[in-house]
Amino acid sequence: MSTQPDRVLIFDTTLRDGEQSPGCSMTAPEKLRVARALGELGVDVIEAGFPAASRGDFDSVATVAREVRGPIICGLARCTFEDIEAAARALSEAPRHRIHVFLATSAIHRQYKLNMAQEEILRLAAAGVSRARALCDDVEFSAEDASRTELEFLAQVLEAAIGAGATTLNIPDTVGYTVPDEFAELFRYLRKNVRGIEKVRLSVHCHDDLGMAVANSLTAVVAGARQIECTINGIGERAGNCSLEEVVMALKTRAAFFNVSTGVQTTRLYPTSRLVSSITGMPIPRNKAVVGENAFAHESGIHQHGMLKHHSTYEIMRPQEVGLARTHLVLGKHSGRHAFRERVQALGFELDEAEFNRVFEEFKALADKKKELFDGDIEALVLRAEGSAPGPWTLVDLTTEAHSNGPARAVVRLTHADGRAVEQTAGGDGPVDAAFKAIEAATGISVALRKFEVHAVSEGEDAQGEARVYVEYNRQSYRGASVSTNIVESGTRAFLEVINRIEQSHERVRSRKERAAATPA
Amino acid sequence: MSTQPDRVLIFDTTLRDGEQSPGCSMTAPEKLRVARALGELGVDVIEAGFPAASRGDFDSVATVAREVRGPIICGLARCTFEDIEAAARALSEAPRHRIHVFLATSAIHRQYKLNMAQEEILRLAAAGVSRARALCDDVEFSAEDASRTELEFLAQVLEAAIGAGATTLNIPDTVGYTVPDEFAELFRYLRKNVRGIEKVRLSVHCHDDLGMAVANSLTAVVAGARQIECTINGIGERAGNCSLEEVVMALKTRAAFFNVSTGVQTTRLYPTSRLVSSITGMPIPRNKAVVGENAFAHESGIHQHGMLKHHSTYEIMRPQEVGLARTHLVLGKHSGRHAFRERVQALGFELDEAEFNRVFEEFKALADKKKELFDGDIEALVLRAEGSAPGPWTLVDLTTEAHSNGPARAVVRLTHADGRAVEQTAGGDGPVDAAFKAIEAATGISVALRKFEVHAVSEGEDAQGEARVYVEYNRQSYRGASVSTNIVESGTRAFLEVINRIEQSHERVRSRKERAAATPA
Repeated sequence: MSTQPDRVLIFDTTLRDGEQSPGCSMTAPEKLRVARALGELGVDVIEAGFPAASRGDFDSVATVAREVRGPIICGLARCTFEDIEAAARALSEAPRHRIHVFLATSAIHRQYKLNMAQEEILRLAAAGVSRARALCDDVEFSAEDASRTELEFLAQVLEAAIGAGATTLNIPDTVGYTVPDEFAELFRYLRKNVRGIEKVRLSVHCHDDLGMAVANSLTAVVAGARQIECTINGIGERAGNCSLEEVVMALKTRAAFFNVSTGVQTTRLYPTSRLVSSITGMPIPRNKAVVGENAFAHESGIHQHGMLKHHSTYEIMRPQEVGLARTHLVLGKHSGRHAFRERVQALGFELDEAEFNRVFEEFKALADKKKELFDGDIEALVLRAEGSAPGPWTLVDLTTEAHSNGPARAVVRLTHADGRAVEQTAGGDGPVDAAFKAIEAATGISVALRKFEVHAVSEGEDAQGEARVYVEYNRQSYRGASVSTNIVESGTRAFLEVINRIEQSHERVRSRKERAAATPA
Repeated sequence: MSTQPDRVLIFDTTLRDGEQSPGCSMTAPEKLRVARALGELGVDVIEAGFPAASRGDFDSVATVAREVRGPIICGLARCTFEDIEAAARALSEAPRHRIHVFLATSAIHRQYKLNMAQEEILRLAAAGVSRARALCDDVEFSAEDASRTELEFLAQVLEAAIGAGATTLNIPDTVGYTVPDEFAELFRYLRKNVRGIEKVRLSVHCHDDLGMAVANSLTAVVAGARQIECTINGIGERAGNCSLEEVVMALKTRAAFFNVSTGVQTTRLYPTSRLVSSITGMPIPRNKAVVGENAFAHESGIHQHGMLKHHSTYEIMRPQEVGLARTHLVLGKHSGRHAFRERVQALGFELDEAEFNRVFEEFKALADKKKELFDGDIEALVLRAEGSAPGPWTLVDLTTEAHSNGPARAVVRLTHADGRAVEQTAGGDGPVDAAFKAIEAATGISVALRKFEVHAVSEGEDAQGEARVYVEYNRQSYRGASVSTNIVESGTRAFLEVINRIEQSHERVRSRKERAAATPA
């Protein structure tokens, strides 16, 4: 299949398997933003979602298929005609698209989950792939839980999928169970025993439950896989998926060993990682390989001494290669448009003129409050600018009073897009709690707070804190975030963003119902 | 060497390589707490520090050597007599101890860092091991940057170390560069080409720069290594070290494949992980394998459906195996001593009667403020109880006022152990900033704030937040933490803890100088 035998395709599933991380669900505009960033990163395939899972998933796959050019856009489907046809419809506007059909093959899944005999699995796999192939030339088949499937049976299923027209065969280590030697053996077995396997592309999909997702993926490449399924920052079910940035940098850093290449622009790794972290609310661990804050930090005296002599003593890749352009260069209120634009570009962001102007205005406003602006401040400005949900509620004024030996009190003044102005006072356990309660009283929306966190986004005396608020409302999860030098204010603004998101989603439901009532089905 | 050929020793270096993570430095009492927890966990060797690095490191190695029984206590030394003798002195009170001598062997390190020819390295390695062996029966030699060393030369150095009396030979992948197939090949080469290698224990030490530390360590075991060097939560230089909990659970979960065992009590993994995170201030990533919040969470409908049928569909180990006894069992102010003790034990904590009584009192006080107490609340109570630095300053009263359109104001009242009572008012950018400034004014200690973070430790409307404050004072880093349902208050208490730590360390320096002046050197 491959015209370049040494090219490994990078199949990004941040929007599908990554979004399955608890707490990482994304809205349709957020998914589109990530998909665009993945396009700029240079991934080969974007798995945009699971169209049959929900109306929202269908819509966001369709939006990505319509808007994002470059990568192949892929949609997941169970082995049913309904799922496969939904995927085909959602993907139809992408010039290059792929239907990804999956079916579990292991004895454990056959017995407990599917309650199906081997024959049924074989029949179903062939029928599903065949149906997908009738709708799309590019069809991937995944044998779920392949690494725990009997070898002979797995070979039979894959042969059936090839016979039905699959163009890519994916071998997932669904539960993160395998180890490199064993996994390589599995690939060698399949390449030897599956008739027609040389005609299709072999793919690998690993989970990190035992900390081996990257190594297992790379071993599969050595054993013949030419597609790696992975996610930005390794997010995904349970311990997550193979981390895109790690596997790509391993292939690059050890190119002489692996002798394959990818199409990834590695200098886009760091900004893409930050974007996904900002959107999902999933922080990047300090000691995360490649993109963590400490990945290029050297603490011990011996290491620092070595680095001063030559960077290769303790560094196998340069921070610049992964787009880590962070400096201790400080901007302030006297910095002009030019300096600011250079810094924004160095940090890996491409903004159009309107976006740039908006962010520059916010930069100026922040520089009035904060003496020194660091890279983290600028990133926070850019990453928040596009993502924040505007209105309908706006915070006009917030006053808090708190005493350690009694309840706190907050007064909020809000305006609504419909013209209302509301002032409410509430008590609470601390000023943040009181402000949340005052907003609930003012807006009439009462939520269950699940989590509240503050992360520093920059350094120094007047560092900014990003507050993240997670709530539940009507059995749905909502998330809000806001950045400020004052954490009580950023907490309050994050909470108000949640309330705005709830009102917006109700607004959408209402207008969809109205449209549905107005037009014949 | 080994009487049980299938036993792999677990060599924990959380206190040495782990402590080298930027921001993870620990005080001597904190190191002792971690060492005791490692003893209960059942590790075979504790690398307690690098005695020649500083007076503080020497003292904390000596304390661990004196106080902790069970594991072998190990100290690191460069290949110099001074370092080796310092290690021997620091370790002398441990009934079983080991000197760990290291020397870089790769061409890059020889040329840029050491500026030494091969012959010098050979001579130095032999001399260092020989000196260590004269002081201690148990001597480990590490060839730093072994994975980038010429094979023939590495074999020569290791032979020299064996000849000089080394009992363990460690092969570090210092810069996280190797991949499993290549690393296994290296071990096979060494076992074939190093004379006398069958008489010593082979050890592996991996870093995670390309995300393969765990897989490389396991591959080394398959190729003959019988000691794994690792850290709790994988903390360490740059992207960190091989993660103890992942490598141990891989060996256990895939016991039939690896056919080796460890002495680790896996049910202690989760509490030990939480303790190290709490002490170092390094959060555990949500999608961290084995110990992360999501490691046993199942998000997608298909996975949840499978789990309801049978846990083995999507789970290769049980949460109970790693000591994850978390429940949604809620305690409250009517819960008695018995229920509380059961929960504390289920969470993996062993408290003596005095500790238990103190924690139970704090539990009662918290239950008066907070309706429902979750596992996270109880963990926070226990983990903080022992670790918090008492006095000299105590917060008596805190009042804050803040308006979104102007500066905030805080009034603090503090008392000092020497009888002083101080009240101060300060303005700031938000109530937290104002409170910090008021404390600085009240105590006369002015610090540079580096970072301020708040993590939720429990759930629900009145969840507790743990505030962490990182400051710099006199070119030293200090860290404080405090838990409360009110984040302005927990931030303020965390800041006051920092001030107390600064005063305590000055107190210690003063009394050491007075002792030194009073006694003849």
